[in-house]
Amino acid sequence: MIYEGPKIIELGESEALARALGVFKSVESTLVPSGDDAAVVGLLDPRVVITTDTMVQNHDFDLGWSSAFDLGYKAVTTNLADLVAMGATPRGLTVTLVVTKDTRQSWLEEFAKGLQAGCDNHASQCEIVGGDLASGDQLVIAVTAIGDLDQPNPVLRSTAQVGDLVVVAGTLGKAACGLDLLRSADKTLADSYPEYVEIQKRPIPDLVLGMELSRIATSMMDISDGLSLDSARLARKSNVTLRLERRLLEGYAAVLEQAAQSINSRVEGSANQWDWVLHGGEDHSFLATVPPGAKLPRGAKVIGRVDHRAENDIYLDDQPLAAAGWDSVTG
Amino acid sequence: MIYEGPKIIELGESEALARALGVFKSVESTLVPSGDDAAVVGLLDPRVVITTDTMVQNHDFDLGWSSAFDLGYKAVTTNLADLVAMGATPRGLTVTLVVTKDTRQSWLEEFAKGLQAGCDNHASQCEIVGGDLASGDQLVIAVTAIGDLDQPNPVLRSTAQVGDLVVVAGTLGKAACGLDLLRSADKTLADSYPEYVEIQKRPIPDLVLGMELSRIATSMMDISDGLSLDSARLARKSNVTLRLERRLLEGYAAVLEQAAQSINSRVEGSANQWDWVLHGGEDHSFLATVPPGAKLPRGAKVIGRVDHRAENDIYLDDQPLAAAGWDSVTG
Repeated sequence: MIYEGPKIIELGESEALARALGVFKSVESTLVPSGDDAAVVGLLDPRVVITTDTMVQNHDFDLGWSSAFDLGYKAVTTNLADLVAMGATPRGLTVTLVVTKDTRQSWLEEFAKGLQAGCDNHASQCEIVGGDLASGDQLVIAVTAIGDLDQPNPVLRSTAQVGDLVVVAGTLGKAACGLDLLRSADKTLADSYPEYVEIQKRPIPDLVLGMELSRIATSMMDISDGLSLDSARLARKSNVTLRLERRLLEGYAAVLEQAAQSINSRVEGSANQWDWVLHGGEDHSFLATVPPGAKLPRGAKVIGRVDHRAENDIYLDDQPLAAAGWDSVTG
Repeated sequence: MIYEGPKIIELGESEALARALGVFKSVESTLVPSGDDAAVVGLLDPRVVITTDTMVQNHDFDLGWSSAFDLGYKAVTTNLADLVAMGATPRGLTVTLVVTKDTRQSWLEEFAKGLQAGCDNHASQCEIVGGDLASGDQLVIAVTAIGDLDQPNPVLRSTAQVGDLVVVAGTLGKAACGLDLLRSADKTLADSYPEYVEIQKRPIPDLVLGMELSRIATSMMDISDGLSLDSARLARKSNVTLRLERRLLEGYAAVLEQAAQSINSRVEGSANQWDWVLHGGEDHSFLATVPPGAKLPRGAKVIGRVDHRAENDIYLDDQPLAAAGWDSVTG
């Protein structure tokens, strides 16, 4: 990924932004677009749903792996998944980008294309309505997303009911598998499993499925830090215990087994598909609880059930499952 | 400013946040506070106003000058001023904070106190409803603010009318004067003019006055990058020319004259109070245009008038005034 042409610092903020902003499309709900002190977005419901997420160079991403387009795309989809996990329809995004003195204008424009592509593919009625371009020693991408509440009540993490089924919508472990493939000393490995590497670089949460699931869910969240850690959070917030079943998770592990074996056939390999499924983050799939009689939307899969609060937050079959996932400060 | 005790990285994200979040107060309009995938804020009007602004260590602030409290306070007030400049009442903030491996928990907690104090003093019905704590090589503070539109139409930059008066609400040049005082090799100078140094560290825009002004303004904006640069932006957006009068700005310059002389009495000094008034940023006062017959709120001052589009964006008396202010990328 080579980015050529002038550096942003050579153009200055106004000129750099003027060129990059041309990439963005407008949507009907934006009443005042970016370019004033603030933007104005018209919602259908006066309850605005808001979330924010940040990615820091060399901590959350590596420019050797991820293109500017990838990073823009990922910044959008990770935030949109959080809105949908509340049952909200995405309407607007603000994007803060800290660039370095070496960042090229062409990088910025590819990043903008990635942002727009994330909206186009996942939330075509969502616009990039504001942002800030700043200068620093490393790249930082901070996105805030706002959404329109699309149902009577937001879907919280704290309202799972004993007797509910535990449901997942989306992939589990593929992004973590992709990360291990990228990290392998054998650089040909990543090319052998492009699907998993792509999901790591550009998560593609199924927001339509997420919205459908949100309409029947008693509780719901975005799985960003791994199934075990996020399940434990939901269990604690709801004061219940989640009992997951290995047989119901077999399918997620089975598709990753070959990739794990490929990594392990290399000198440094110590991959395990179950670690990815249980503890791997960044798929940005949805974890929900639904009443036992509910009709599941196509693509949602039962992985366990909600039980009375026990000694541990989550169990896998009869064994306590330790929550092990990503901490954004300690890594 | 010494911050002691454990480092954030030693505590981890969850524990560090749990301790810092206790500082924040809740307000009635927050329907779902931080702690879920997203927050939910109940607005009176379904048109949400949104803005974002970022500060990067060693580019936008210096830890030798600004305390953690100062930075939290400034991050809040600069964003709230942007909302008010649209005629919106602040309702919620999300805060992204990138910390380094050396940042102390006590710094984080003072920062949180500064955020809350900014709300308490300027927008008591605004809550910190979300955020993200990340790890990086330098501190970055990115805030997004949302507000409730409090009048029939947002007040734009693009709607100044020929014949209007140009009005300022708030100080001009004090923050820039404070910056030059801090930069002086004579470290006693900053202590001699605490008011200007404080405004640089912790801008205190009069949001109540700003809201009153917004109700009669034909156009309005927050002066963040300096009177000349921001006036030029407003003029261009509205396709008019602003004619400012030196005699109407004399008062702003007069109060800063002594500080300029003090700096100039030192070896390296080359300060000028008129440079501060015309080109200095960061006071976060309000620039507005109002119809000639309008009754100005107490504290708003006329500094010129709106004329038909001429060759230049702005004039000071009969001379074109060059727009010279802050570019957040080139500095």
